[in-house]
Parts: sequence; C-alpha cells; structure tokens
Amino acid sequence: MSSLWTDRLSSGARRMTSSAIRDLLKVTEQPEVISFAGGLPSPDCFPTEELMAAAERVLVEKPLAALQYGPTEGYAPLREFITTLMRGRGLSIPAEQVLTLNGSQQGLDAIAKLLIDPDALVLVEEPTYMGALQAFRPYGPRFITLPMDEDGLDVAALEQVLKSGEQPRFLYMVSCFQNPTGITPSPERKRALLEVAARYGLPIVEDDPYGELYYEGARPPILAAMDVEMHGELRHVVYFSTFSKLLAPGLRVGWVAAPKELVGRFVMAKQGLDLHTGSLSQAVAYEACRDGLLDRHVPTIRATYHARRDAMLAALDQLMPQGVTWTRPRGGMFVWLSLPAHVDAATLLQASLDRKVAFVPGAAFHANGGGANTMRLNFSHSTPERIAEGVSRLARSLAEL
Amino acid sequence: MSSLWTDRLSSGARRMTSSAIRDLLKVTEQPEVISFAGGLPSPDCFPTEELMAAAERVLVEKPLAALQYGPTEGYAPLREFITTLMRGRGLSIPAEQVLTLNGSQQGLDAIAKLLIDPDALVLVEEPTYMGALQAFRPYGPRFITLPMDEDGLDVAALEQVLKSGEQPRFLYMVSCFQNPTGITPSPERKRALLEVAARYGLPIVEDDPYGELYYEGARPPILAAMDVEMHGELRHVVYFSTFSKLLAPGLRVGWVAAPKELVGRFVMAKQGLDLHTGSLSQAVAYEACRDGLLDRHVPTIRATYHARRDAMLAALDQLMPQGVTWTRPRGGMFVWLSLPAHVDAATLLQASLDRKVAFVPGAAFHANGGGANTMRLNFSHSTPERIAEGVSRLARSLAEL
Repeated sequence: MSSLWTDRLSSGARRMTSSAIRDLLKVTEQPEVISFAGGLPSPDCFPTEELMAAAERVLVEKPLAALQYGPTEGYAPLREFITTLMRGRGLSIPAEQVLTLNGSQQGLDAIAKLLIDPDALVLVEEPTYMGALQAFRPYGPRFITLPMDEDGLDVAALEQVLKSGEQPRFLYMVSCFQNPTGITPSPERKRALLEVAARYGLPIVEDDPYGELYYEGARPPILAAMDVEMHGELRHVVYFSTFSKLLAPGLRVGWVAAPKELVGRFVMAKQGLDLHTGSLSQAVAYEACRDGLLDRHVPTIRATYHARRDAMLAALDQLMPQGVTWTRPRGGMFVWLSLPAHVDAATLLQASLDRKVAFVPGAAFHANGGGANTMRLNFSHSTPERIAEGVSRLARSLAEL
Repeated sequence: MSSLWTDRLSSGARRMTSSAIRDLLKVTEQPEVISFAGGLPSPDCFPTEELMAAAERVLVEKPLAALQYGPTEGYAPLREFITTLMRGRGLSIPAEQVLTLNGSQQGLDAIAKLLIDPDALVLVEEPTYMGALQAFRPYGPRFITLPMDEDGLDVAALEQVLKSGEQPRFLYMVSCFQNPTGITPSPERKRALLEVAARYGLPIVEDDPYGELYYEGARPPILAAMDVEMHGELRHVVYFSTFSKLLAPGLRVGWVAAPKELVGRFVMAKQGLDLHTGSLSQAVAYEACRDGLLDRHVPTIRATYHARRDAMLAALDQLMPQGVTWTRPRGGMFVWLSLPAHVDAATLLQASLDRKVAFVPGAAFHANGGGANTMRLNFSHSTPERIAEGVSRLARSLAEL
C-alpha cells in the first residue's frame, strides 16, 4: 500500500536523477561553509534598489500587467526589450520569435519535450551543464558526448559522428564561458560548427546565460547571430538566455529566441507547462531595465567577478600541487579542475566538507559516465578573501588524501 | 530546410493541442468584447496595496530571500504558511509534504511526467479541465471519461471501470466547483469515491483552485482531508491548489500536498522543470498573507463573485430559450450550459463574436470528443451589468441560429 504511487512511476520518472548541486545547496547554506559549489550570482551584485523602485512603479501604474494572467508568449514590452538586448548580441530578431520562460532551465525541459523521444540521439559536450542532462533525461535520449579542448567543442569529432549517418535531434551546448568548464569556443570554431550544422542539417540548442560576464576583451559572439548572418534568418539555432545573471535569479525570467517554425510549438508546450511566466517578475524585469539599467549595472558585475576569478586563479596557481590542472576562463562563473587520474573528486568532497569547503564533483557533468577525477569551482559567490581561504582548505584536503 | 526542427518533433509534441481558451484570450482582450471565455479573477479583487507593501517589506528586509536562487521545495516560511492554510481546509500535513509550484498548472505537468507512460490509462471527469488535458496529452495517456450528475462524479461508473480490471495511473478531478461545470460532489459522494479508491488501490489527483470561492453554506470538504481521516496519512490523494484565485494569478504561486512516498520524486521533477518557483513571488505571497490578509480579503472576493453568479443565473433564467439547460453552481467561477443537441457551440461562438460576446465551446473539455452542444460561461471577470448585457447578446445570437 505504501507504494501506491511509486509502483506507477513512468519510465520518464525512473530515468530522473537528482541534482548534485541542488542537494549540496542544503549543506552549503551554513554560513561557515565556503561554497564553490552552487552557480549562485553574488548578492552584492543584485540591483535591489532598482528592482524595488520597479516593483512599486509597476504595482502603482499597471497593476493588471503585474497581477492578472498574461499571455503565454510573455509580457509584450519585455519581449520587445529582449529584442533590443539581442541586437546588442548581434542578433536581429522580431519579438514574435522571442518567448519568455520561467528561467532558461524551463526552456531546456520544453525543447526536450518538443524534440526528444526515447532512444533518440542528443549530442552534448563533455563535460556539459548538469541541469540540461536533468531536463533531457526523463525523455529517454541516448547521449553522444563530444570532446572539448581549450578552444571548445571538437568540430572534427562532431563531423565524424554526423558522417557515420547518426541523426541527432540536436546538439546542446553552452556557447560562452561554458558551465562547467568556463571554456568559450573561438569565433573560428563557432563558424566551423555552424558550417557543419548547415552541411548535415543539424539543429543546435544554444544556451547562453553567461555571455555578458566577460573579463577580457569583448563579449564572445553567439551562434544564433552567426546563424542569421549565414542564412538570413534564425535557422539552425534555438537560443536560450536569462536575466538570472544580469538582474537576479529569484525573478525566474529567462527567454528563448526560436526559429519561426518552432515558435507555435514552443507556445503550446509552455501552455501545458505553466500557462505563462510570472507577470509580476516580467513586469519588474522590464520596468527595471527599460531606462538602461543593464548598461550601468552589468559592468559592476563584471568588475566584481573579474576580481574573484583572478583571486581563484592566483590561489590555485599558488596552492595546488603538481598533477592538478585547471581552466583559465575569460568570463563566466566557473573554473574546471582536473585531479590526478587516481584521485576521486567525490572522496575529496567528503574530506573538504570536514574543512567546511564545498564544490561539485565533475562526474555529474558527464552524460555517459567518467570524469571521477574532475570538479567544478564557482568563483562568483565568494569574496576574494574567502576564495583564497577556500582554495587553501581545498589544497590541504587534497594533500591529506 | 524549413522543417529542420518540425521534422524532428517528438511523439509527445505531435500529441500537443493548443488551448482554446488561451487562443481566445487574444480576441477577448478588446475592451468592447464581453468575455465569458477566460477563467480570469476580477482585477477589482486583487489586493494590490497589500501586495505592494509586501514587495517593499520583502525587498528591504530580506532581499536575498526574494532575489537569490531558492530551494526547489519552495520558500520555507511560505511552505509553513500553506500548512496553516491547509489546516483550515481540514488537512493536517507537515511542511515537508508541501512543495510550491509555478502555478498549480505546473503540478499537472509534473504529475503527468511522474506517472504517465504512452498508452497508460488516466481517468477524468466528463467534462474536465482543459488545462489538465493539455498537460497530460503529451505523455500519451488513454483517457477513460467518467460521467457526472448534479452531485458530481458517478462513483458506480468508476467502480465499473476498476472492476473490469483496468489499472489506471490515476483519477484526475477538480473536487470543488469544478472547472468547467461548477459542480461539487456531495460529501457522501466524495466519501464513496475514497472508499472505492481504497478498495481498488486507485491514486487520485485532486485539483482545488476554487474551493474557497463558496457562495452558499460552508467550504466543501476536500478529498485529501478525508483521505487522511480514513488512513491517518495522505495516501490516495495528491492535492493541488493555488494563490491565483486568493491573491493574484500573475504571481504564479501554487502548491502541491503529496503523499510522503512521492515528495522526493516531485522535487526531482521540479529541478528539471525550472529549478524552483520564483523567489520574489513566493516571498511576496508569504509576506502579504502572514498577518491574516486572506481572512479579511477572501470574503470580499466571495461577495463580488456571488453577486456575479446571481446576475448570470438571473439573466439565463430570463433570456435563454427552452431546450437550453445550465448548472447552478454554489461557488467557483463557471456556469456550464447545454444547448439543444443539434446546436453547435462553435458555430454559436462565431455568431456571438460578431455581437462582441465570447465564451468557450465545451468540446475542448471532453477528453475523448463529444460535447459539441456544450459551452462554459465565466462570471467572475464581468460586472453584473456586463453579465446581463452579455447574456442578452448571447440569447440574440442563439435565436438567430
């Protein structure tokens, strides 16, 4: 009798996995723990005053827009604003092809629902964003993982797979300052990728929550913009992004820019998922941003995280023993670390938690297993001082093993 | 090339249907249209001042709780508050078994994801909530529809199905002032239903967005509370409800109260869906409600809708020709109307839109077809005067056919 419900679990439910990060969050909420585990923005960077003023304006001037049911496609002024934002990323797209989401994570579930059948093939980077794997897995895909180097996805390996006659539903990738590695493919690599996609008719799901967080040079180009350049319209790329890293993740406002042929289906999927994204959140995001807040505010986020990235790389350079290697990301929120092959990051995590420092073992970012000796370190959520102390605790834990 | 994406649609995506209501919303946004179509609460009933004060308090006093990523399970103080709310509905349940949702619609998707495989059997009332059908359909269930009378679901018909050896994944029902009929099963009927559920091991998904909107007598009992009475714990029932009809739907805050064995799975599903429900919305809902707002505010909603229901029933009594019948709901937001068998509600809708009055044809509420001569009328969103005028336009459209 106690298994009335679990006896009936769908095959999708049986494929679900719990998020190693979300589970860790509970441990890392203790203030004495230095956490490199979550992917949390720094609360020092939330534009709280501006959001408060926006909330007040919205509720005084247009309470209906903030409180009533709204269109599934999203709050119209926000969709327009997003097209302006996207033009800044090199992508000209009409508002009709932009839909708001309850965070871009929802887009990953929706695109999986639209495109994945059991045993269908999905291509992902190795390693890849764990939340994408969590969103995709219930739909039962087979994953093929593609290797990466310092310049990102190995396009030759991708072409090899496509040449062999495999018909993937799509390739999923985080295109700028990847989660978990921080790696960004070079513009040449991105162009080569799109050429292969065009040649083999490969759809690409581009996830770009971090692209504005660049600490050297300019913002990396996005695949969606290059796709439009090549084809005159968005054709090979569905593009996801979010206000979570620009304003605040608690708003849960993300968006998708989708090829015309997919927009109607996306709306239908979203109707079933939750009718629409929160009206209050969307109205507040729009009202906060409409007068140019992001242009003033995002540079301060960049400056803060830049210093934290530098602190983390400096501490790693200083404290990590030989045999440990890591990425040197030019933006984003994460450093990816490889331990000597025989060291298990999950074991290191246990030792580290005793010293009150946390991170995410890398195995969870590997779609088909492996990566036991890898780990992800977040630098956006801790001050430079805490980062130095945390890396030092980590080095001591490692020395002990 | 233009079908790069749609050629790859999953079988789930091919089963999706668009919402007749959401599609109509675009027409009915024109102010000259009297709309009985949506299921919109009256904006006159939004506690805008209180929500504004709550937003300000939240952003001043605990900006982190409102702006940072939060736990998948929901904002802890809100979960606690919901347990208090549920005690008022006769259900004692620990906060661990309560999870917040991005509107209760999200719960319908999540429960379908957890329990429905292609060709699995799901039982629904005839007619039933269209949004539930939309949420369930992508997962490919077979539906068996159960007839209703004035006292709700026909329990003998249910027992007949179960006796035949069918093993449904669950029975879905709106247990109080049903959408679309406004019907509430009598307490005796509910008890009989639970007894049958216990005898045959039938899980029940209880959807209760409208139960607080009663205009005669007391709040109807909920199945979840009766289930706990019978078994000492929540066993046969997953219960969904929402703040959409108590505060404002634009917040998108709903919740689920689930049997212990299902809670972990629900959390896992929600992680993949959207990480968590909006922090700002949850914190605002909690902060607005914590000092007893609902006890002061919900009676004013009841009074408003009570008058509107009376206006609609009076207008129907006065203006509808013989051969047209309708329900007389004691609460909720809808009246269900049956036209003479040969009259098609979709045709009537076209004629009515010319006269600037809208409603939802009933076919969309029928899981397996039928119901062409039925229609749903919403009374919560229009003033008594507009209701009288709208029903009069409707009667004229009908006379013309």
